[in-house]
Amino acid sequence: MSRQPRAELAQVVLQEARRLVADHGLGALTARQLALSVGCSVGTLYNLYPNLDTVKLHLNAELLERLAVAVGVADAAAGGPQASPEQRLLAQARAYLAFASTHLNLYLALIDNRPPTTDEPAPDWFLEKVARLRRGVEAAIAPLIPDGDEARLERAATTIWASVNGLCEGIVSGNLARVSGTDPNLLMEELVATLAAGLRARG
Amino acid sequence: MSRQPRAELAQVVLQEARRLVADHGLGALTARQLALSVGCSVGTLYNLYPNLDTVKLHLNAELLERLAVAVGVADAAAGGPQASPEQRLLAQARAYLAFASTHLNLYLALIDNRPPTTDEPAPDWFLEKVARLRRGVEAAIAPLIPDGDEARLERAATTIWASVNGLCEGIVSGNLARVSGTDPNLLMEELVATLAAGLRARG
Repeated sequence: MSRQPRAELAQVVLQEARRLVADHGLGALTARQLALSVGCSVGTLYNLYPNLDTVKLHLNAELLERLAVAVGVADAAAGGPQASPEQRLLAQARAYLAFASTHLNLYLALIDNRPPTTDEPAPDWFLEKVARLRRGVEAAIAPLIPDGDEARLERAATTIWASVNGLCEGIVSGNLARVSGTDPNLLMEELVATLAAGLRARG
Repeated sequence: MSRQPRAELAQVVLQEARRLVADHGLGALTARQLALSVGCSVGTLYNLYPNLDTVKLHLNAELLERLAVAVGVADAAAGGPQASPEQRLLAQARAYLAFASTHLNLYLALIDNRPPTTDEPAPDWFLEKVARLRRGVEAAIAPLIPDGDEARLERAATTIWASVNGLCEGIVSGNLARVSGTDPNLLMEELVATLAAGLRARG
């Protein structure tokens, strides 16, 4: 493997890291196991990425990108700017839940950034990928926010994302089944309908 | 330690487990470290609890109980049945966030029940502690649900809990700071105000 160009090898490492996490969860991502999967030494690995947190950051960035595409496609299919905020929000939330369900371990790895991992500030290129998802929500609800108030729009979009993500996490982790036996899809519809009605009512 | 009565030793084990998780996170809770902290053998430990998941279940049950008390006290201080749904929901959500912030590692251990841990059905005495928190939300929003529709009430309460928990998790984990720089308290107020207004508007 050592004859591969550096950039190419770095890609192979990410690919193997993704496979490990997808198949066995974030706990399976150790330097030793990763080097074994790639077929290189641990030294070579640390020559490409300073630490495992950097590998995780790239994995998460990749997932955010795929998530943004999935949500964007669903939003467009629902009509995009021609659809109502309610229709767009529900399409986005459903796509988010479907993506999390079908990429369970990678999704859990995305939200399992626990302190002190998160003590390091995230680089701008990563924050841009986060912002892209938030802007998708902003586009959907903008007609419900009066006077184009940007601070309010960001606040509303952030809470909607966090709450949809919270419900989504409860569903796919199995934790929510302990709270209620209701069909998860009905719960997502209930949440989105209430949030949209609330934004509309508050003005 | 082996001369202590069995029930007493089981309590000491829980107490040490709680201290380990609170101080160092769920990852620090290994059988070896726990036995070392208690001052007994790993064999004695497994004689008291069949596995670490059972220890975690008891830790989580204890935390749910303390969380329910904290939320209940805040709800009562806000006026309880004499207060509006908006006032009660906000008081409960603020208490939830404050509790999670001050018991960070124990809170994260509570929601970090990931598959396959959750494959085992939770015992009824545990589910009752979960239901207690959900019923607190139901009490707050009941006046907003028409015709005393119990299925709708449970659905609404479940989504409110999951969404408040999602925002709370985003805040205390530091993940949400990557989405928006807005004051977390403002975000919680925004979410609760929107949910309550939404329930009121939908009827």
